[in-house]
Amino acid sequence: MPDTAGIKLADYLLTRLKQLGIGAVHGVPGDFNLTLLDYVEPAGLQWVGNANELNAGYAADGYARIKGVGALITTFGVGELSAINAIAGAYAERAAVVHIVGTPDRPTQDSRRLVHHTFNDGEFGRFAQMAKPVTVAQVDLKDPRTSPEHIDYALTQCLLHSRPVYIQVPVDMVSVRVSAEPLASKIRMPEPMPAESSNDVMTEIVNRMYSAKQPIIMVDGETRAFGITSLVQQLVEVTGWPTWSTAFSWGFLDETLPNVHGIYRGMFDAPAVKKFVDESDLILCFGAHFSTTNSHAQTSVPKTEPTIYISGTETRIGDRIFRDIPAKLAVSKILEGLERHRVSTYSTYPDLARPAHEGYSDELTDQALTQATFWPIVNSIVQPGDIILGETGSAGHGCRNMVLPKHVRTFLPVTWLSIGYMLGAAQGAALAQRELISSSNYHDIQSARTILFIGDGSFQMTVQELGTIIRHNLNVTVFLLNNDGYTIERVIHGLKQGYNDVAAWNYTQAPSFFGASEDTFTATVRTCGELQQVLETEALRKVEGIKFVEVILDREDVPKGPLQWLLNNQLAKQK
Amino acid sequence: MPDTAGIKLADYLLTRLKQLGIGAVHGVPGDFNLTLLDYVEPAGLQWVGNANELNAGYAADGYARIKGVGALITTFGVGELSAINAIAGAYAERAAVVHIVGTPDRPTQDSRRLVHHTFNDGEFGRFAQMAKPVTVAQVDLKDPRTSPEHIDYALTQCLLHSRPVYIQVPVDMVSVRVSAEPLASKIRMPEPMPAESSNDVMTEIVNRMYSAKQPIIMVDGETRAFGITSLVQQLVEVTGWPTWSTAFSWGFLDETLPNVHGIYRGMFDAPAVKKFVDESDLILCFGAHFSTTNSHAQTSVPKTEPTIYISGTETRIGDRIFRDIPAKLAVSKILEGLERHRVSTYSTYPDLARPAHEGYSDELTDQALTQATFWPIVNSIVQPGDIILGETGSAGHGCRNMVLPKHVRTFLPVTWLSIGYMLGAAQGAALAQRELISSSNYHDIQSARTILFIGDGSFQMTVQELGTIIRHNLNVTVFLLNNDGYTIERVIHGLKQGYNDVAAWNYTQAPSFFGASEDTFTATVRTCGELQQVLETEALRKVEGIKFVEVILDREDVPKGPLQWLLNNQLAKQK
Repeated sequence: MPDTAGIKLADYLLTRLKQLGIGAVHGVPGDFNLTLLDYVEPAGLQWVGNANELNAGYAADGYARIKGVGALITTFGVGELSAINAIAGAYAERAAVVHIVGTPDRPTQDSRRLVHHTFNDGEFGRFAQMAKPVTVAQVDLKDPRTSPEHIDYALTQCLLHSRPVYIQVPVDMVSVRVSAEPLASKIRMPEPMPAESSNDVMTEIVNRMYSAKQPIIMVDGETRAFGITSLVQQLVEVTGWPTWSTAFSWGFLDETLPNVHGIYRGMFDAPAVKKFVDESDLILCFGAHFSTTNSHAQTSVPKTEPTIYISGTETRIGDRIFRDIPAKLAVSKILEGLERHRVSTYSTYPDLARPAHEGYSDELTDQALTQATFWPIVNSIVQPGDIILGETGSAGHGCRNMVLPKHVRTFLPVTWLSIGYMLGAAQGAALAQRELISSSNYHDIQSARTILFIGDGSFQMTVQELGTIIRHNLNVTVFLLNNDGYTIERVIHGLKQGYNDVAAWNYTQAPSFFGASEDTFTATVRTCGELQQVLETEALRKVEGIKFVEVILDREDVPKGPLQWLLNNQLAKQK
Repeated sequence: MPDTAGIKLADYLLTRLKQLGIGAVHGVPGDFNLTLLDYVEPAGLQWVGNANELNAGYAADGYARIKGVGALITTFGVGELSAINAIAGAYAERAAVVHIVGTPDRPTQDSRRLVHHTFNDGEFGRFAQMAKPVTVAQVDLKDPRTSPEHIDYALTQCLLHSRPVYIQVPVDMVSVRVSAEPLASKIRMPEPMPAESSNDVMTEIVNRMYSAKQPIIMVDGETRAFGITSLVQQLVEVTGWPTWSTAFSWGFLDETLPNVHGIYRGMFDAPAVKKFVDESDLILCFGAHFSTTNSHAQTSVPKTEPTIYISGTETRIGDRIFRDIPAKLAVSKILEGLERHRVSTYSTYPDLARPAHEGYSDELTDQALTQATFWPIVNSIVQPGDIILGETGSAGHGCRNMVLPKHVRTFLPVTWLSIGYMLGAAQGAALAQRELISSSNYHDIQSARTILFIGDGSFQMTVQELGTIIRHNLNVTVFLLNNDGYTIERVIHGLKQGYNDVAAWNYTQAPSFFGASEDTFTATVRTCGELQQVLETEALRKVEGIKFVEVILDREDVPKGPLQWLLNNQLAKQK
């Protein structure tokens, strides 16, 4: 029987989102998306309702990085432009975010009516133009005949590139009927059509893996976008080779394995480690994303000659580039082709540092907290399955000095570095985490929390999303690092300048102001002993709901590594 | 002597801003603008330091509407894109905002280095492309030889169109020396070169003003952008003709004059008023901006035949359009050419409603506050020189039911309608107001406040800017209309839908959370009597600093006029 009844456009779109595994839609209502919102909860999707659109974008991004894909709905002009910086961030760091924008009805657009949310000039195409540089597909659903195909095209692009797409839905299209037929088959990623060279290339790689004398593995963050993290994890286990991550990928692997060494820090790493990496004769590098921030100013980028890069649809062996070999295919082929007993092994495993627990000792009790003492102590809160977000700044650099249990995902400064992002992303990540747990799809873990480490300046950017976290009763524990302004900017330039100050807020009042119940755990800690005491408090150890801890730190105190290096430069100038 | 020493680029740019009358620069520090910020305060400009860039953009816009021009500084990518919705709003409603963006140094851009705040692809031109549709000039200061000229060009465009411009300053250009010579003469608006037809056109207009039987004047908001409000005010006084404003222009004129009748509401106005306007044989209409919102769904747009439009560089008589007659020239010529004794006058001034004080009466004491009672009562707080901001929603519609003293400026929903705008704009407007008062440039008024009426949903969007208001000790009184969600959206669609709810915050804790002193005035009012009592409180009457009053209103209560009409439609549908 032909599909004469069809389905309403809104239902088509939302059904597709649900098929992709999306359980909740972020966004803000606006008069051009209200009728679309009518369909969200009936479609079995949760409506989050963020405090503003930028935060909604950040949240959808955070959600996408945990569940694979996320979505937000905004309104024409004002809403979508408020979110555009978040969409840009999702583009830069490959989060698959579907940005749906409710637009004026077709008669209004066609007649160039001077409606609100425009420039009063009858021009309706401007904002789609602005979305173009920050999305991998843009569709405007103005024709019921082609809308299903347009939606499917946009969603495919979103998944394929793990980057945002832009879908405009005019008000009068929401309830128009479209064909439901395509819904019978799920959105499928285009199958790889491997280049002819791929077998030879894989054979060459495997042979190199047999003959290498000092092989290592480096795993970067685009592995997630290209769906190869678990394959790479297998390779890490099979080879037993020393393996490092970047800030972008930290936590993708099982960090408790003895051959997994945390983040490689290039010039800031232990000399023995750097020497070992520099002298390696084979570096398998997956999902590379070597922005300056993610590569310690390029110093953790491996040398070209010994390195085999596998990423996207490209494999590189030294300086030879082989195109059209999708990463997933490449890693699968290596795993298939590899004769385990022939893989090069270390007769004695090299003596290379691994992240180690330092923790709390009684001698520290009365000492003021510093970046050096805070992270080892706070580390004890982290449990398997937790999500850690370290905001751009000292938080994002400091928290990588922790030791990760299994199945802990991290969000660290990678490339976009839009401060305030991590608070919005925490909302989205915590919601995704809760969905995965409740669908028994979270490594057999029944309970976990999202832990946000964020500086005062960043917190101020997006603070209202704490209200959303509270409203949805998400398990988010916030450590607000109050170091009296933008410390990361101070160490770059203007150490003592007033422009790096921020307004002085009473941070611990935040949960109460944003509507948390009166018994919500809040604390301010200044010493190591106070922090330790807080960490032992029953109310904090309880995973459920919001917890808020203000941590007082010195404004010119930064974690060792790049920030300390920058600070030293600043201090040297002053002399 | 030739100008061999020159001046640093940053000093050139900031000197120009100061010459334009800018006293304070809004924005947020970021690592690509820090060195530029070093020059702000030494140039004699105040650095505001907003909590985020969207709010900084809103604030610069609010500042610009009071002082004529405003500026903000953001950082490449993350900062500028966060602000872009505010820039779009300034474009839509003609606020002269100079958006200065600190960008990576030229060597970084030229070598396509994979730095942060990019898409990790070596492309640096993307964000300037995105700025293009929302600004009237874009310059990238990469060449010291042409930078002064580029700056002057951008600023001229900004003033000429009263719309935003975009200026990129690479880090390594900040302290490069450029010629200081152009600074000797101020930025000048291009002189009008009137069309040959202009004398004839003006003669025709003047003759119509002599012969009209039922002439009226309508003043819209673009009069400010084109610098003709005081000229129009003269015409209103000279003619004595019935005069109306729009939401965009309300307060530009002296609203205490007997022939100034407040906002013309088209289909929502008193039938006698509508009839009078409809039957007018001459309508002088200045600075028209007839978006649907600003024209009561086009019903307050005057008929073509009797109307003479003067705006921008165009005069229209009926359906004849005369181009290249700048508005300022046109109005000046009319005022010059007009023989006062020949101007048509009303023998008996027509009986047309004017805004009237209702105020508080004891009978109201125990009544719950409604939109109908709130505005007349709260009206008593408004004093000459105050600035009133009514956020998009019931606040922006309700507050036009007040009576304005002299020299009160208003911000009402016009066209862009980005909720949350008014809180940021309040910060900028209050700062501009303080500057004007302290330079004795404010109608001989020594003390005034900025009064913000804002709904709960809007407040949540940009709440952090309350911290900036407090930090700079601005005189802002906030009436937070707590009606439990997005009431304006409810009356458009989804009256009872959950997506129109917002998180429940404890609003009166806001001043304390954002750092106000403990003795800050805060109150919650539910009845007319409680409101009246608050308005009589000494601490509230004191103009200085922040005051915060939460007003509890019903979620389905809206001011009469368009919102009531929309609500009635919603209610009718439910039956």
